Amino acid sequence: MVSAVLRLHCEDVKGIVYNVSRFIYEHGGNIIDAQQHTEQLDKRFFMWVHFDCTDLAVDRGALRKHLEKLAAQFAMTTELSFSDERKRMAILVSSYDHCLYDLFLRHQYGEIDADIGVVLSNHETLAHVAKSFNVPFVHVPVLAGGKQAAEEEMLRVFREHEIEFLVLARYMQILTPLLVDSYRHRIINVHHGFLPAFKGARPYHQAYEHGVKLIGATSHYVTAELDMGPIIEQETVRVSHSHSVEDLISLGRDVEKKVLAQAVRAHAAGRIMVYRRRTIVFRN
Amino acid sequence: MVSAVLRLHCEDVKGIVYNVSRFIYEHGGNIIDAQQHTEQLDKRFFMWVHFDCTDLAVDRGALRKHLEKLAAQFAMTTELSFSDERKRMAILVSSYDHCLYDLFLRHQYGEIDADIGVVLSNHETLAHVAKSFNVPFVHVPVLAGGKQAAEEEMLRVFREHEIEFLVLARYMQILTPLLVDSYRHRIINVHHGFLPAFKGARPYHQAYEHGVKLIGATSHYVTAELDMGPIIEQETVRVSHSHSVEDLISLGRDVEKKVLAQAVRAHAAGRIMVYRRRTIVFRN
Amino acid sequence: MVSAVLRLHCEDVKGIVYNVSRFIYEHGGNIIDAQQHTEQLDKRFFMWVHFDCTDLAVDRGALRKHLEKLAAQFAMTTELSFSDERKRMAILVSSYDHCLYDLFLRHQYGEIDADIGVVLSNHETLAHVAKSFNVPFVHVPVLAGGKQAAEEEMLRVFREHEIEFLVLARYMQILTPLLVDSYRHRIINVHHGFLPAFKGARPYHQAYEHGVKLIGATSHYVTAELDMGPIIEQETVRVSHSHSVEDLISLGRDVEKKVLAQAVRAHAAGRIMVYRRRTIVFRN
Amino acid sequence: MVSAVLRLHCEDVKGIVYNVSRFIYEHGGNIIDAQQHTEQLDKRFFMWVHFDCTDLAVDRGALRKHLEKLAAQFAMTTELSFSDERKRMAILVSSYDHCLYDLFLRHQYGEIDADIGVVLSNHETLAHVAKSFNVPFVHVPVLAGGKQAAEEEMLRVFREHEIEFLVLARYMQILTPLLVDSYRHRIINVHHGFLPAFKGARPYHQAYEHGVKLIGATSHYVTAELDMGPIIEQETVRVSHSHSVEDLISLGRDVEKKVLAQAVRAHAAGRIMVYRRRTIVFRN
Repeated sequence: MVSAVLRLHCEDVKGIVYNVSRFIYEHGGNIIDAQQHTEQLDKRFFMWVHFDCTDLAVDRGALRKHLEKLAAQFAMTTELSFSDERKRMAILVSSYDHCLYDLFLRHQYGEIDADIGVVLSNHETLAHVAKSFNVPFVHVPVLAGGKQAAEEEMLRVFREHEIEFLVLARYMQILTPLLVDSYRHRIINVHHGFLPAFKGARPYHQAYEHGVKLIGATSHYVTAELDMGPIIEQETVRVSHSHSVEDLISLGRDVEKKVLAQAVRAHAAGRIMVYRRRTIVFRN
Repeated sequence: MVSAVLRLHCEDVKGIVYNVSRFIYEHGGNIIDAQQHTEQLDKRFFMWVHFDCTDLAVDRGALRKHLEKLAAQFAMTTELSFSDERKRMAILVSSYDHCLYDLFLRHQYGEIDADIGVVLSNHETLAHVAKSFNVPFVHVPVLAGGKQAAEEEMLRVFREHEIEFLVLARYMQILTPLLVDSYRHRIINVHHGFLPAFKGARPYHQAYEHGVKLIGATSHYVTAELDMGPIIEQETVRVSHSHSVEDLISLGRDVEKKVLAQAVRAHAAGRIMVYRRRTIVFRN
Repeated sequence: MVSAVLRLHCEDVKGIVYNVSRFIYEHGGNIIDAQQHTEQLDKRFFMWVHFDCTDLAVDRGALRKHLEKLAAQFAMTTELSFSDERKRMAILVSSYDHCLYDLFLRHQYGEIDADIGVVLSNHETLAHVAKSFNVPFVHVPVLAGGKQAAEEEMLRVFREHEIEFLVLARYMQILTPLLVDSYRHRIINVHHGFLPAFKGARPYHQAYEHGVKLIGATSHYVTAELDMGPIIEQETVRVSHSHSVEDLISLGRDVEKKVLAQAVRAHAAGRIMVYRRRTIVFRN
Repeated sequence: MVSAVLRLHCEDVKGIVYNVSRFIYEHGGNIIDAQQHTEQLDKRFFMWVHFDCTDLAVDRGALRKHLEKLAAQFAMTTELSFSDERKRMAILVSSYDHCLYDLFLRHQYGEIDADIGVVLSNHETLAHVAKSFNVPFVHVPVLAGGKQAAEEEMLRVFREHEIEFLVLARYMQILTPLLVDSYRHRIINVHHGFLPAFKGARPYHQAYEHGVKLIGATSHYVTAELDMGPIIEQETVRVSHSHSVEDLISLGRDVEKKVLAQAVRAHAAGRIMVYRRRTIVFRN
């Protein structure tokens, strides 16, 4: 079965759900699930609709064109995607392998509705992992003073592999605006700390010194401001005085891979919309 | 603002969302939130719609009448309720007060969209709690061999107080079909154990002897079969070998009151539908 | 059964456990539970011993005196308390009642090994709650420019009621050094936010604007630096884009009362030691 | 640093902690951590002591011999193990790989204090995974009517690889007493269901039909009675009506690997004692 996901937001006026469901009905779609949300801060209306395309009465071009008219009528921002047009992702890593293995395995189990086009790293350490899952591995070292050149090479690799979104699976380089702007709201990072506390380096050491009783991890979209992009997923795990910094790091691995995977799944399935500094993550 | 909740289920055919949203639109309602669900076991479609009634074009009688026509067209089972027609609940207790206090306080905080009409007990122990919250307390003792008479008296009390649903807040009597059938899918119980394990008496002692590492509680609708009605909410809490039976009971209190309160909130807000032995609990 | 709790810390040298257990054995005590901990930052050794005093061979004065000798030998800092010398606590509140009810009820269930000597408030709002649990209520208003005078009056009340530690159960006044220094590491506060993020005012509004996916609460000892004292307990609860600020506040109530109660239980039972900015919380 | 773990249980009489700590002190050991526990059901005392052996005054043979004398004096059951005598484990699998990958990776991160001697399977499906981690893989098919022969072959393989404990990482064969008795309390299984509910086959289908709101997994020692051996670790994850059986299976994978890994870590580190049908799992 081919299905589609329509995401839109607009001013909160009467009749949006009716008009959208009529649009889908009249084009032969069958709504499987729909979710709505109104942002409290400025009364903006968000809608996510998942519909069956088996009996679609028009071709996709026509559907998109008619959607434009509906969008114009209500000043909607819309996005439409189809389940058989799978997105391609790149996974960026440095030397830690836990998030990489986790993404490979979840992809194999069919949990992620996207294809892994390439693994890219500033080190060669994890080439063997990509190889064992039959995914191309590209090494792009980042030399002192050579970050710009490296990012240009990375962009070339992403174009070559037709990459639509990036997953920073503990990639230890800060991205410049060149990459961030090329993939706006399409770069997912995992921060090994419970944002907005403990920004920056060595968050587990900071956590130990503060004697926190919970540690956490946060997945978020990358924006120009370091570790401050829209949060997608967060999770914490209980710790005590008896945990060493090494224990925190070990417990942190489990949380990091979990919040990253959930963000990747939601992004791949088209369940995320970004508004202001917040994400609306429609439910699975 | 007065709003309404429409719940329905029917065979999963094309156009339900469209027809329901058109129905609401054409009668002047404005959809605030809507949720859908299709049961996997037999492809039955469920829908929950919350809509603003400020600009309703017809009176409620007419709305209900027109809804009947729509329901007939799709062989729908429907229920319609309005936010200003608050339901009235009775809380049944024996001697434990933790769930009772919790419900009183949540009601005071505005978390429960229903009114507490009466507290009824087979003991007099908790009369002072009801009094401190200014709610009528009725003592209906259950004598040996007198359960039938007691339940008839209870039904009389519920009628007098116009009670629409019952909350068994650690009420330690098993109900007979007389009461259960009078309030079908409208009696909420909390079981102090993680059903379906540990049915029946002294679940915390059973849990200790089995050396479980989690204990839990379950809220569910009461049916003829003991502790086996449709589950509404469940939760667990971590325990270890070092917890005594008394510790388990103490930890259990926190879980019991939480799962009971969540069930009461969902029921009061009209967010629950029952199908087969499962509940569909639409999200808050 | 009367039991005692001995807490100590000292440099981590060989034979501490042996010498402490010999000390208890030779004085007729029977160890029920003991826990040890070595701080990673500077190799300091912490020990907590719970022992049965039924067959104690000496009186408490002699025991304390002999303990001093042992402490001198290893340069230990020690504290010794007996289960029949219950501590007395004061609960400070403003207008929110959820933590107050929770502490009263847990005290009634026997979960807190201390007595509630007095409830003190800068408002009269919650007098009726204290009354319904038969605990003295004292109203000490804090007038503009009169904080010093108010704290002096508070200290007088605490002396009168022989108060040994203070619980700020959503008390909305910042304490001055007068009170903080009088009850060093004996004032427990609950912060309605997941420290160290969102310090200061309106943390739930901050959380909403950041679009966090978890909210939390933190209980900690009060020190001169606002909301930065040693953390005792923390907990988070999952939220989503669909939760309003009011929902966050409501969910927050449950977490606040839980982390405050756990801190009070641990403190009352003598299970907490403070070192640097960290707490060692021995397990129940 | 070489360290040792001493585990013992005996009748709960005065002076055990003192005598054990004296024993260690007098032999030159330095206690790093010690935990005690008294079983409520019959007042049996359990103790776990982790001590530094750097300055051990005698050889291990002498230490063991002297320990026997202490054990005889108090009718203790004791076990003593040294950190440099690492245990060897076999992992048994069928076709699911999630637990296998998880154990390999945690072993690589140093989280498991044991060596993986061999992976054994009734299928060849996962040979490549063992190969990619450089661990021997042995295929022992279980033919109809040939279970006894297969288990004899398995025992031979385990002897050859000097295997001390077995981990059933979703191994889909029921073991006979031949294997179970050979590795009493040394076979760890993960049950994909929250025991003691949903014993036996297809627990996720059972869970769906019951409409449970939590699913879980349980790791336990294998005994003659199916899925009823002493529980080591349990965990649950929240589900709703909207999760399909496939979703439950997917969520279950995460819980299964987590509870299995925690059981393996605890067993490898010598932190588990079994008594009656309960486990005492000393804390990390």
